[in-house]
Amino acid sequence: MRLAELSERSGVSTATIKYYLRERLLPPGHRISATQSAYDEDHLRRLRLIRALIQVGRIPVNTAREVLAAVEDESLDQHMRLGAAVEALPHGPEPNDADPTTAAARRTARELLEHLDWRFNLDVAEVSAAFRMLVSAIAALNRLGYDCGLPRLLPYAHQAAQLAVVELDLIEEFENPTERVEAAVACTVLFEPVLLSLRRLAEAEESNRRFGQSC
Amino acid sequence: MRLAELSERSGVSTATIKYYLRERLLPPGHRISATQSAYDEDHLRRLRLIRALIQVGRIPVNTAREVLAAVEDESLDQHMRLGAAVEALPHGPEPNDADPTTAAARRTARELLEHLDWRFNLDVAEVSAAFRMLVSAIAALNRLGYDCGLPRLLPYAHQAAQLAVVELDLIEEFENPTERVEAAVACTVLFEPVLLSLRRLAEAEESNRRFGQSC
Repeated sequence: MRLAELSERSGVSTATIKYYLRERLLPPGHRISATQSAYDEDHLRRLRLIRALIQVGRIPVNTAREVLAAVEDESLDQHMRLGAAVEALPHGPEPNDADPTTAAARRTARELLEHLDWRFNLDVAEVSAAFRMLVSAIAALNRLGYDCGLPRLLPYAHQAAQLAVVELDLIEEFENPTERVEAAVACTVLFEPVLLSLRRLAEAEESNRRFGQSC
Repeated sequence: MRLAELSERSGVSTATIKYYLRERLLPPGHRISATQSAYDEDHLRRLRLIRALIQVGRIPVNTAREVLAAVEDESLDQHMRLGAAVEALPHGPEPNDADPTTAAARRTARELLEHLDWRFNLDVAEVSAAFRMLVSAIAALNRLGYDCGLPRLLPYAHQAAQLAVVELDLIEEFENPTERVEAAVACTVLFEPVLLSLRRLAEAEESNRRFGQSC
């Protein structure tokens, strides 16, 4: 299809598509003349993912480029491509290791992974962005005087593990390895607001059950 | 205690505390002379919550002021104070109702609440920020071509309901109504990064289990 059709089918303006092409977020089309290129279903799907990252995930263009590079890196196996793509997503503030609260939080996070027997994460803990995000979160809670030991963390970890099974089932529905990695990235970014909004709704429901005035 | 001690015990600089006092985030101290005020444990606890909202939750000062006003509003019952405080937290982009995808997403979100029999949320759906956040998230997923019907949403809702029970148990450990609302706000804001980071770690673990090369 031509640029105009790609724009119509994706709902993204031609100016924005040209910007994504210039920024190498979207791979170039297939040249059909000196001034025209053709685009295919892969471009359409990729455009959808770019919109998910930038519009919904509010991820900077440079970060999106890194994520997409990992999605395309066929030198990596399935698990490593998926890991590299999710790893490139933003993870919030970096922990400051000079600080004793952070050092203690790191120990708690490691203990949690050991308790759960999350061996893969234990192996890569030192280089994992998600692990650093967890350390920062625990340190922030402790610094504010909220207890954040294993008993407090375990319910979250157990829920997360159950969700991961559902999410990987969804990802496995895709046959093609690139589509799988794309689905993993989209799922990670796009279901975050679903999870957070449902958590707030569930809290409201439970609070009403316990504290609400019955009418 | 004097300002200097409040600063020392909270780890917040006196300049920042003065700023929070000027901005009416922190209630004024008790006047002890023309130039000096005394602060108590309530100030210390409130300062902790302000830091949680602004530093960890990255919430703008104006929004934090609204949240704290709800925390203090003794004219509301327990459940309403809690709801008003969480309601004042940021909830992401507003849904655009002129758009047919958003209208469909609103129907899906309502169906989900009906299916779960979340009656409190059904009653307040039209005015609830968390409900609007859910509608936006579903609309974004649909717009990008990802299926987001009830079967996809239910696992998230069930996990959220289980977390809400654990979280309300934590909140009920506090006796004093104001401390309860403070704990609810802190818990909502501060456990979000814990939940999101553990979800990513659980995904990595599950992905390694399914796709990783066994060594």
